[in-house]
Amino acid sequence: MSPDGDFRRIAIVGVGLIGGSLAFAVRRRFPDVTIVGIDRDDVVTAARQLGALSQGTTDLAGVAGADLVVLAAPVVANLEAIERLPSLLEGHAIVTDVGSTKRATLDAARALPARLQFVGGHPLAGAAKGGIEASRPDLFERRTWVLTPSLSTSREAIARVSGFVRALGAVPLELDADTHDHVLAFTSHLPQLTASALMQVVGDGVGDDGLQFSGGGLADTTRVAASPARIWTDICRTNADELIPALDRLIEALQAARQSLASDQTLEPMFDSAQRWRARLRS
Amino acid sequence: MSPDGDFRRIAIVGVGLIGGSLAFAVRRRFPDVTIVGIDRDDVVTAARQLGALSQGTTDLAGVAGADLVVLAAPVVANLEAIERLPSLLEGHAIVTDVGSTKRATLDAARALPARLQFVGGHPLAGAAKGGIEASRPDLFERRTWVLTPSLSTSREAIARVSGFVRALGAVPLELDADTHDHVLAFTSHLPQLTASALMQVVGDGVGDDGLQFSGGGLADTTRVAASPARIWTDICRTNADELIPALDRLIEALQAARQSLASDQTLEPMFDSAQRWRARLRS
Repeated sequence: MSPDGDFRRIAIVGVGLIGGSLAFAVRRRFPDVTIVGIDRDDVVTAARQLGALSQGTTDLAGVAGADLVVLAAPVVANLEAIERLPSLLEGHAIVTDVGSTKRATLDAARALPARLQFVGGHPLAGAAKGGIEASRPDLFERRTWVLTPSLSTSREAIARVSGFVRALGAVPLELDADTHDHVLAFTSHLPQLTASALMQVVGDGVGDDGLQFSGGGLADTTRVAASPARIWTDICRTNADELIPALDRLIEALQAARQSLASDQTLEPMFDSAQRWRARLRS
Repeated sequence: MSPDGDFRRIAIVGVGLIGGSLAFAVRRRFPDVTIVGIDRDDVVTAARQLGALSQGTTDLAGVAGADLVVLAAPVVANLEAIERLPSLLEGHAIVTDVGSTKRATLDAARALPARLQFVGGHPLAGAAKGGIEASRPDLFERRTWVLTPSLSTSREAIARVSGFVRALGAVPLELDADTHDHVLAFTSHLPQLTASALMQVVGDGVGDDGLQFSGGGLADTTRVAASPARIWTDICRTNADELIPALDRLIEALQAARQSLASDQTLEPMFDSAQRWRARLRS
């Protein structure tokens, strides 16, 4: 296998933060590879002006001839794209995605013919703000890139995608989709939902005048609430059955805290436990 | 009034992040002022080794002779210190505090004799980690420093504290204690409580193995959970009546989100609203 996984023509469907950063990373590492970007007209125009793409189009038919298709749109848009791929891609190709939930996408990918080998993927990399403007070629460096193959995925396809993401600086890690979606419900989807709900409650509660009386604490805690709404809507929707129990645990914890406050009992055990967990999290 | 507010001897009760940073800021701006630090033995030793203090003691009696006393311990400890000040301070002095809630402290300060003029204060400055080791002289630069005088506080005392904090680089702003505690319940205390509850739920939910599958989002959202537990326990306890209704609004928002998830309704309006509010918050 050549170091670029033998890919000569890569189609990226969705050229936002992740898709755009992927394009930049490929350009830097494999300057001879043709990169076709597919997105709305204004996004494609911006991406081309930034030098991210060899070609750009608004039509999913732009995947034709690609030997690697990367689905990097919001998850529900990726599901819709998967349905259309068999009629748009004639030969053999590997299809992967970068979505934050994996079971729904793997379920949809079961309908793909064997010539289109699907390898689910999720780079654990991001930024508070989305969009092609925030893209950067080093976004994936030293970041875990989870790969979730299905039972029907060939080892060759897995090895090629694994080598590809490693070449871009990431650390590939195979994980089953169920485990991925369960863990990420806690470590990513619940924090996002919480930060957004908090930002809405605080903003509605005190308005612009009150927001002036805030410091770095509110800014840090709500930073991810700046993320694109559509992306998180899809993530929550396609992982609702894992997210709901996690959310229930948070609601219970907040109700317990409320009960302690109302009865003048100390919250110190909760703050202590949180402080200990936070110390074990990489910053 | 001289530029240092005529203070010659400043006693700082509690030499953590805020008290320590205050000491460093005074040393830099007013090198001739004597700074007495009062805290646990290990904290006083560390603060002296770092060059923050002229003198250090574990005994609150160290406030004797000070013309400015700054209460910078956790709020409930400040309340206890206020009770003891009249017997420890013989002459006239100004007493201020840097606590994150103001009504409880102002209530306690009503018992002070007129020779001890109380001006409540709250610098809107902080850091994720507390302690003297995290202190720095520029912590207050360009930060709002809320002053909450009581009805019995003299204009002279207010002017002296105001000039003092301005000399340290902060921007003094008078606010009544009720408004302060209401607004800060939303912009500071609720975010802290939420971040800590989230960190506890996520840590308990997936453990160290699961925490490996997290990125900058969880790290940002839970950053303040690293703050000292005791400080936040006191803050929540002394502002429970404002914090509880704010917490109820968050619980309602999370329950509404749960209901939407369970019925496959979109969360996009919530994410959209949060994104708009977040854009209006300074970084």
